[in-house]
Amino acid sequence: MATTHKPTQSAAETDPANHPAEVRFRMRIMKGETIALGPGKVSLLEAVHKHGSISAAARSLDMSYRRAWLLIDELNRSLKSPATISEQGGQSGGGCVLTPVGESIIRLYRDVETQAQAACAGQIESLTKLLKP
Amino acid sequence: MATTHKPTQSAAETDPANHPAEVRFRMRIMKGETIALGPGKVSLLEAVHKHGSISAAARSLDMSYRRAWLLIDELNRSLKSPATISEQGGQSGGGCVLTPVGESIIRLYRDVETQAQAACAGQIESLTKLLKP
Repeated sequence: MATTHKPTQSAAETDPANHPAEVRFRMRIMKGETIALGPGKVSLLEAVHKHGSISAAARSLDMSYRRAWLLIDELNRSLKSPATISEQGGQSGGGCVLTPVGESIIRLYRDVETQAQAACAGQIESLTKLLKP
Repeated sequence: MATTHKPTQSAAETDPANHPAEVRFRMRIMKGETIALGPGKVSLLEAVHKHGSISAAARSLDMSYRRAWLLIDELNRSLKSPATISEQGGQSGGGCVLTPVGESIIRLYRDVETQAQAACAGQIESLTKLLKP
């Protein structure tokens, strides 16, 4: 049986300047001038899901409670059915949980990023090859 | 032969608040913390192609000449072969044309946006249906 030998890492491979290109996809659904759904609101929903309150989510994203609350409010107003339910709410920063709609939004949005990148693998490879390694 | 009758536009259709959701895809290729290629640089390349100089491209995008020049310089340094050739260049703001590499970047980047949106049509429709009309 053939044995696979890993080549010794070259200096170029260990140089941080030579790390591989990283591709980021961001989708925004606009209604007029408002971002109805985009990366900021989805990251915030994920943080609420993880931390269980808007105040803790805001802290984890280094965002003010006021800004986080306004983004969640704007999102819920733009939806037919809200993405979150505040258990106590208000300035006290009570608990906040995601509804099934909120969970669907996260799943669909992250699916879009993954699928978009897979669908465009050819062009992304061509573009990456134009860059210095 | 059947005749197609266009229905009269309803008040809801003419209300600007009811325009349809618009989807925007943005891809960024990162090298570490630097955006090697993203929407800003691609729009700038398109403007250079259209206007024939960095100064005119900068004006068309409401951007300072200095910022446009720095973005083009950063892009060209990150590429194996440059995207633009400055015919006179420098502070005089001489002519600037795209190389075949520059033209390829625009084409590939815009293809990615179109193809990503087509590949994710299902999820985008599901997300859009969650929004108020």
